[in-house]
Amino acid sequence: MADRFEVSESGAAALTIPSLRWEEPPEGPVLVLLDQTRLPAEEVEWVCTDVPSLVEAISTLVVRGAPLLGVAGAYGVALAAARGYDVTDAADALAGARPTAVNLQYGACRAQRAHRAALAAGQGRQGAAEAALREARAVHEEDVRAADAMAAHGTALLRELLPGGGYRLLTHCNTGALVSVGGGTALAVVAAAHRTGELRRLWVDETRPLLQGARLTAYEAARAGMPYTLLTDNAAGSLFAAGEVDAVLIGADRIAADGSVANKVGSYPLAVLARYHHVPFLVVAPTTTVDLATPDGAHIEVEQRPGHEVTEIAPPHAPGAGAEAGTGIPLAPLGAQAYNPAFDVTPPELVTALVTEAGVVSPLTADRLAEMCSASPVDSTESGNGMMAQ
Amino acid sequence: MADRFEVSESGAAALTIPSLRWEEPPEGPVLVLLDQTRLPAEEVEWVCTDVPSLVEAISTLVVRGAPLLGVAGAYGVALAAARGYDVTDAADALAGARPTAVNLQYGACRAQRAHRAALAAGQGRQGAAEAALREARAVHEEDVRAADAMAAHGTALLRELLPGGGYRLLTHCNTGALVSVGGGTALAVVAAAHRTGELRRLWVDETRPLLQGARLTAYEAARAGMPYTLLTDNAAGSLFAAGEVDAVLIGADRIAADGSVANKVGSYPLAVLARYHHVPFLVVAPTTTVDLATPDGAHIEVEQRPGHEVTEIAPPHAPGAGAEAGTGIPLAPLGAQAYNPAFDVTPPELVTALVTEAGVVSPLTADRLAEMCSASPVDSTESGNGMMAQ
Repeated sequence: MADRFEVSESGAAALTIPSLRWEEPPEGPVLVLLDQTRLPAEEVEWVCTDVPSLVEAISTLVVRGAPLLGVAGAYGVALAAARGYDVTDAADALAGARPTAVNLQYGACRAQRAHRAALAAGQGRQGAAEAALREARAVHEEDVRAADAMAAHGTALLRELLPGGGYRLLTHCNTGALVSVGGGTALAVVAAAHRTGELRRLWVDETRPLLQGARLTAYEAARAGMPYTLLTDNAAGSLFAAGEVDAVLIGADRIAADGSVANKVGSYPLAVLARYHHVPFLVVAPTTTVDLATPDGAHIEVEQRPGHEVTEIAPPHAPGAGAEAGTGIPLAPLGAQAYNPAFDVTPPELVTALVTEAGVVSPLTADRLAEMCSASPVDSTESGNGMMAQ
Repeated sequence: MADRFEVSESGAAALTIPSLRWEEPPEGPVLVLLDQTRLPAEEVEWVCTDVPSLVEAISTLVVRGAPLLGVAGAYGVALAAARGYDVTDAADALAGARPTAVNLQYGACRAQRAHRAALAAGQGRQGAAEAALREARAVHEEDVRAADAMAAHGTALLRELLPGGGYRLLTHCNTGALVSVGGGTALAVVAAAHRTGELRRLWVDETRPLLQGARLTAYEAARAGMPYTLLTDNAAGSLFAAGEVDAVLIGADRIAADGSVANKVGSYPLAVLARYHHVPFLVVAPTTTVDLATPDGAHIEVEQRPGHEVTEIAPPHAPGAGAEAGTGIPLAPLGAQAYNPAFDVTPPELVTALVTEAGVVSPLTADRLAEMCSASPVDSTESGNGMMAQ
């Protein structure tokens, strides 16, 4: 079962606790997660000693973010194998922890296949467990390398689009080190621009309803010492109108074969605003986010979340509050019904460029996307599955 | 000083307590306000026996909304006159209660002029106090009539634009009976369409940061029995993309001479989305909202509100919480700075039509706007001042 212990109060330094790590104390291996539901109020670790505790962490958003869920899924299978639990049961439970989080399935599946191959090769239970862990570490390292490569391609693209530096960048939701074991996606590009002194201002959309921008991106930006300003999602229009946004950078949860981008709800209105104001709209995501099996945006299934995420707010320092209807602080009349899609879909014609670890695709067309995926080192038939995760 | 007493728990019937009323109990006249900061959790009245308590109610948003503030300003002066306080001091205090709420100044000024004219005509203190009250009642009645006229013109326009009824209308902020002593502005049109069976769905933007949509519009819609659904401001884009919005109806806080519309922040992104999706974008506001002295949108001063409205949330049932930094529930890291404009400005070319009590202006051009204001029964030199109120 899960065990929790506090590590520190939020400070001003860089991210002190990794979003996820594998540890091997004498009592047996564990997967340690930074509990993202309690940020920014406090940094608390969630220690998984078995798959049910990891499944609980995934479904309650203790761990979230497309790339990170892939890594968590792989380590979850490795944990089951190392502790002698049934690996097939573990992989199934992990894959079903969030219905549309296909990256989770991708990570779990890679570790499971490695485990099965080792067993078939006669390496025995311990050898198979080691093979699953090696594969999880490989998924982990690929994520770190992909983040670095996206940051390099993204900053090169910014220099090309906006010569002279001093960028004022607007972002939505959370796409930094918390969604990754590396630097993340869009926020990794922003952080790289900050390190070279090219970032003038990061505009952080608060990202209702779950406030990943206010809670998580602001937390990461503050700890990295970035010049950032928080705003309601409503106020982005005023910034565009005032000429205060040089580019929009967002992540992606799934990219269809035609280049349609599913991302956190509120991304599409930003894309329309960016087009109206002739501001570059950049999507930063690993190639594993591309789902060639989904032909276009109309075929992307968008997760509908419970209405109480809109009609109530979960107070911080109250773990579990808000997870079910009636447990948060009400913001609307009792009985109010809410429309609460978790994601929206931006058509490719509104995307200036897609930045992946394999390079930049601009304009974003089906042909160029297919070409990049076929040239990418990642096997697109196995990784080409939707990633749709809070 | 103010006296508060609870009247009832929120029910399901139509608005039971008027937003504002003048009463004359034996102890002397009072102005009774519905405390909007405590809605929808509870219906509490705020009873003003003097101007300082009314000024407190205005500055803490107990009473809000452009038309209603005009009425409150006029009654405030009448209250001072009836109770023998200095009328000039009262008018000055009311006009300064919210810096950009010029309608407040307009209402206070009308009652003050009537008071002064009666004194000059030798009607004595009591006669002058009665004259001020008559003028306040006139401002009150003009607001009721203007709301009815806007509802009639607005529904006629909807029938013209969207033949066949079954409207799915999207609105932002709160523009109903709570901003008015009548039916309000945009929400008065929606309510009229509902009464004739032409409303299929009202989409209610929650309207961050102060959630006037979730707290107030949802409350009014529920009590009027409208089919309504609440959404985060982020989710409006998904509704447009799905073809679920037939028209947008909003109010206005100030309309410049060129037709630029200042309204609650988040209105401008809706206007851009509406244009991108070829959906009518309708502004409903009385002619007193037109400010011919402000040439264009660039000259409209937008009130910047404190950042803690974004970084903290005030819980309901806790009067006063959130009014100052550090008293609400934190939503962001401590020290986070926020950009928090109260309003944004929509250029006239994005407005399909302006609906006023004097008729419909479409397209919205400087010439047509000037023509309507000169033909309007309201004296535009006296009323032509900005109305910019939460």
